[in-house]
Amino acid sequence: MNSIYLDNAATTSIRKKVVDEMTVVLNSIYGNPSSTHSYGRKSKSVIEKCRKRIAAHFNVMSSEIIFTSGGTEADNLVLRSAVYDLGVEHLITSRIEHHAVSHTILQLSKEKDIKVSYVKLLKNGSVNLDHLNDLLSAHNGKTLVSLMHINNEIGTILDIKLVGNLCKKYNAYFHSDTVQSVGRYKLNLSEIPIDFLVASAHKFHGPKGIGFAFIRKGLDLKPIIIGGSQERGYRAGTESVHDIVGLDLSLQIAHEKMKNESIYISKLKSYFVERLKREIPGIIFNGDSDCEKTTTYTIINVCFPVPKEKAQLFLFELDLNSISCSTGSACQSGSDSKSHVLKEILAKNDLEKPSIRFSLSTFNTKAEIDRVIKVINTVINK
Amino acid sequence: MNSIYLDNAATTSIRKKVVDEMTVVLNSIYGNPSSTHSYGRKSKSVIEKCRKRIAAHFNVMSSEIIFTSGGTEADNLVLRSAVYDLGVEHLITSRIEHHAVSHTILQLSKEKDIKVSYVKLLKNGSVNLDHLNDLLSAHNGKTLVSLMHINNEIGTILDIKLVGNLCKKYNAYFHSDTVQSVGRYKLNLSEIPIDFLVASAHKFHGPKGIGFAFIRKGLDLKPIIIGGSQERGYRAGTESVHDIVGLDLSLQIAHEKMKNESIYISKLKSYFVERLKREIPGIIFNGDSDCEKTTTYTIINVCFPVPKEKAQLFLFELDLNSISCSTGSACQSGSDSKSHVLKEILAKNDLEKPSIRFSLSTFNTKAEIDRVIKVINTVINK
Repeated sequence: MNSIYLDNAATTSIRKKVVDEMTVVLNSIYGNPSSTHSYGRKSKSVIEKCRKRIAAHFNVMSSEIIFTSGGTEADNLVLRSAVYDLGVEHLITSRIEHHAVSHTILQLSKEKDIKVSYVKLLKNGSVNLDHLNDLLSAHNGKTLVSLMHINNEIGTILDIKLVGNLCKKYNAYFHSDTVQSVGRYKLNLSEIPIDFLVASAHKFHGPKGIGFAFIRKGLDLKPIIIGGSQERGYRAGTESVHDIVGLDLSLQIAHEKMKNESIYISKLKSYFVERLKREIPGIIFNGDSDCEKTTTYTIINVCFPVPKEKAQLFLFELDLNSISCSTGSACQSGSDSKSHVLKEILAKNDLEKPSIRFSLSTFNTKAEIDRVIKVINTVINK
Repeated sequence: MNSIYLDNAATTSIRKKVVDEMTVVLNSIYGNPSSTHSYGRKSKSVIEKCRKRIAAHFNVMSSEIIFTSGGTEADNLVLRSAVYDLGVEHLITSRIEHHAVSHTILQLSKEKDIKVSYVKLLKNGSVNLDHLNDLLSAHNGKTLVSLMHINNEIGTILDIKLVGNLCKKYNAYFHSDTVQSVGRYKLNLSEIPIDFLVASAHKFHGPKGIGFAFIRKGLDLKPIIIGGSQERGYRAGTESVHDIVGLDLSLQIAHEKMKNESIYISKLKSYFVERLKREIPGIIFNGDSDCEKTTTYTIINVCFPVPKEKAQLFLFELDLNSISCSTGSACQSGSDSKSHVLKEILAKNDLEKPSIRFSLSTFNTKAEIDRVIKVINTVINK
């Protein structure tokens, strides 16, 4: 039985071309980018070319791209330094952010006398923009808004251009965890007024352990990892040259293929949604994740109309049938606690039913969806 | 003209076997270790096997090994959390630590009301153990000693067992930056009373971007990167599975070959030292780096008896002849400032002469040393 991988919001397979390129670097380019001799200069030149190419996708300057060990570190860097070094006293966020943001904000609120405001959500998990406007207009000192672009569990899309403009109007900083959107959407930051965003290569068929923060020019953040002048002083530690090359190439390919792949995946999602609707009466699409316009083309999050006793069985049966998907974000999956995102949007009654996130990639097929539907039907009718 | 790489204290080439194994992982093991499905469990199992094997080299428990993005992050984690979470009020260190330690300590001393004491050094850069004893016995509150095992610039070796016992006697924590010794020496931590050490794979022919901290059981540090329960809560962020595999295998091979390779490199160093002594009268071995007993077998740091006007020329000529070495640590090489290590041990007069660090690996040869000597002679006689 072939395995079916439908957990692409947790992580993705790496493209063969990316692995090949990384292997070349691992075998032949090993100088320390901080060394001034030829080996060092070679490595330095490689990572600066990557940085330049990455910056170009976003229409920003190379110097605004700071490599980190991933999205989580990048979120930590931005939020922590915004509070400590930019003097942010008021953080506006939502209750359905990734823990890299929400836990960091919670920690900062314990360390410093800052105000944290949570923006109200609409029923489908979208941000209530009127409330955001109210919060911003209330004037609570130097403010930063941190709202993710695409929710990693339910796929709702935030209009970051609109939010960016709102922040600009009220002179607030805007940070967005764009881990689920970078590599899947074109983000032209010359048109989106945003101060900080973060990305993680393993979400777009690149390697794990590497990501970056975009830090708008002139915003003088300070590093959270210190002891070297790498990354223009934003992050100490020898750069992981092979991983940076993998990040760059995977993003390059993602952009080249974005149009075709997004159409392909969107069709797959529509097909999946239609069959689920047709064959499973009473199914709930959490966060309106059946909606093409308000949710991303890669994520479907559904609540199955079965008694809570069957909830545990659901993932188990899917796993037995070699189908990999998840109940929430991977980062929580060790724990027994329910998804903090679904808690915010589901009725108590529905929260006890099994909810599953399926997240698609270009490597999934219609035949896979057919088998998944078959297994779901079997479990429901058991 | 073949290139000669003599900067192995800055970084090393990766062994072919390690690259091959990493490539296998990159191509086939991509689950998120936090996912509970089969792809996730496979990745989790891979990294836990690595952790177990790494722990075994040091005779410690798997749970005492925490993967990080490298040695710098690991040093930051330990020092920051020791002050903030273990309540350390007094840090004893030296003025010749790596900046990952010294800059972090400086930063902590700005944030918190802690005392920082600098242990005196002997003429050769070794720690004055009598003074360390004095500092420890002076009782300045909860204390942590942070002293590197092997100095990355001059190669002096600290007796970490002795220092560990001294710390134990005075009930102080002991942290050591062992980035230059892990993979080159066998460290049995059941016999060395140490609380924290750190390592970086790219120093022992493994990949960049990965390292670990050893954190003695029961010492409840808190993460500096938060937002996920990875690494038992010590470090949030999706684990870089391929890099962890590379770290593990490179350390495995380093230990398997340690005996033979250390003999080989030691002989090479002796040969290099003898020729330098014989052919360049007046040469100074910084930190007594000609001494087999007090300095590591991989590092030679020499001060050439030429006028300061020729200092800049030295590295330049070596580079022109495709010989890669350095003036200090790679992490400083962008800057014009003199090595903070040499400043502590050299007379002002000698500090202005060119000092060069040559650091060897098992991939260097006698023929390479011969060519280096030839070039040095040419430069000196120019």
